[in-house]
Amino acid sequence: MNDNSRNIKIILEYDGTNYHGWQRQPNRITIQEVLESVLSQVLKHTVSINAAGRTDAGVHALGQVANFSTTCRIPIDKIPFALNALLPEDIVVKYACEMPEDFHARFSVKGKYYKYIINNGRFSSALHAKREYFCPFRLNIDLMKEVLELLLGTHDFKAFMASRSSVKDTFRTLYEAGLEVKDDKITIGLKADGFLYNMVRIIAGTLIDAGRGKISVEEIKRALETGERNLTGKTVQPQGLYLVEVYY
Amino acid sequence: MNDNSRNIKIILEYDGTNYHGWQRQPNRITIQEVLESVLSQVLKHTVSINAAGRTDAGVHALGQVANFSTTCRIPIDKIPFALNALLPEDIVVKYACEMPEDFHARFSVKGKYYKYIINNGRFSSALHAKREYFCPFRLNIDLMKEVLELLLGTHDFKAFMASRSSVKDTFRTLYEAGLEVKDDKITIGLKADGFLYNMVRIIAGTLIDAGRGKISVEEIKRALETGERNLTGKTVQPQGLYLVEVYY
Repeated sequence: MNDNSRNIKIILEYDGTNYHGWQRQPNRITIQEVLESVLSQVLKHTVSINAAGRTDAGVHALGQVANFSTTCRIPIDKIPFALNALLPEDIVVKYACEMPEDFHARFSVKGKYYKYIINNGRFSSALHAKREYFCPFRLNIDLMKEVLELLLGTHDFKAFMASRSSVKDTFRTLYEAGLEVKDDKITIGLKADGFLYNMVRIIAGTLIDAGRGKISVEEIKRALETGERNLTGKTVQPQGLYLVEVYY
Repeated sequence: MNDNSRNIKIILEYDGTNYHGWQRQPNRITIQEVLESVLSQVLKHTVSINAAGRTDAGVHALGQVANFSTTCRIPIDKIPFALNALLPEDIVVKYACEMPEDFHARFSVKGKYYKYIINNGRFSSALHAKREYFCPFRLNIDLMKEVLELLLGTHDFKAFMASRSSVKDTFRTLYEAGLEVKDDKITIGLKADGFLYNMVRIIAGTLIDAGRGKISVEEIKRALETGERNLTGKTVQPQGLYLVEVYY
């Protein structure tokens, strides 16, 4: 970063439906790629951007955070409008500010808040098909809340991590774990100092299995103790998942 | 209708984004066409379907009602599941029942409930771009409510009808007209015995202009008296409009 460059933080909302996730990859359209291309047009130099979390294909964000360095003198409060004018309507920049040089959207993260939405009605929703997981089975909400209670705090969440992940330290602290029911909609809200790969989707899948009586609370206790992935539920679909907020 | 045929009423939810409205038309994909094609597959005979309202391109429905006649003996409670299995995920049948022979989804209508959603925040929403009208201007909510109060009851709504419409009797009774504000979202809810062509969208456009101070309450009174279309606001975009419920 040279002396004239500023470190800019932006907050983004996006609908993940039409993207192969955040991270740039060959021959696939990704949010990072679209954003970097628009940033380069606006700032008149190539830009490389860091995000707080590399959301998977189909995952949505209400408050993704990203940062980039620029030598462009555009006023900070003009940045969202300049970007939104060129971005597709399913990606919106809602905020921009200047940060100290050492701020990094990913490495500086202190915590994240995700929510997962389940449609527990009789029918899937035409309007929310890509924004929630449809689960028409009868669910025992009290049991699901009991499981969330169990997951709260600091644990080895290895059993709640995609088995192909190579992360070594699988301890995380879940400091909020809520479940809200409104009509047919169940919203799971999870705040933690960090999440393992697929952790929210595996927790959601495990809660659903617990609610259906397919996994017992005892088995989930054992999953936390042993780290065995086969004791937890499946990784449910990405379209119910939202990155709501990132804490620094 | 022969002796063996049943008159079936269904209730539908759909996301209007990808359709050129309800009504079948050449070389355009419409909800009626998709539904009739799936019905014909399920019922093993050609089907012609009537809807309560012919929603325009981009307009959504939470509770569109339609009816059709069939000689197929499929149990009534199986109909939604059989149709949903073949329908695209942005059209969902939520209910089916058998009706007397003279029930007609359009001609039997006693009233309809529409809502129109305005995003009055600083930025458009990535997740709701196709489901609300973005209006970042400061709106005087009290004035908007005053206008709704004025529209309540029986009036000649000619000034709130698309000028290309050829309907002769332009009197309608608006028996509920509400406006709800939640965070940046303004929801207008209108119930009437019937709506003229584009009436909800013109009312929404007029409310926005009133809220911005571009049209006075006096002018709107005059619009109701004279029926002059140039005294009311523009027809705002279809994506904020939802057919919520139909009354019989």
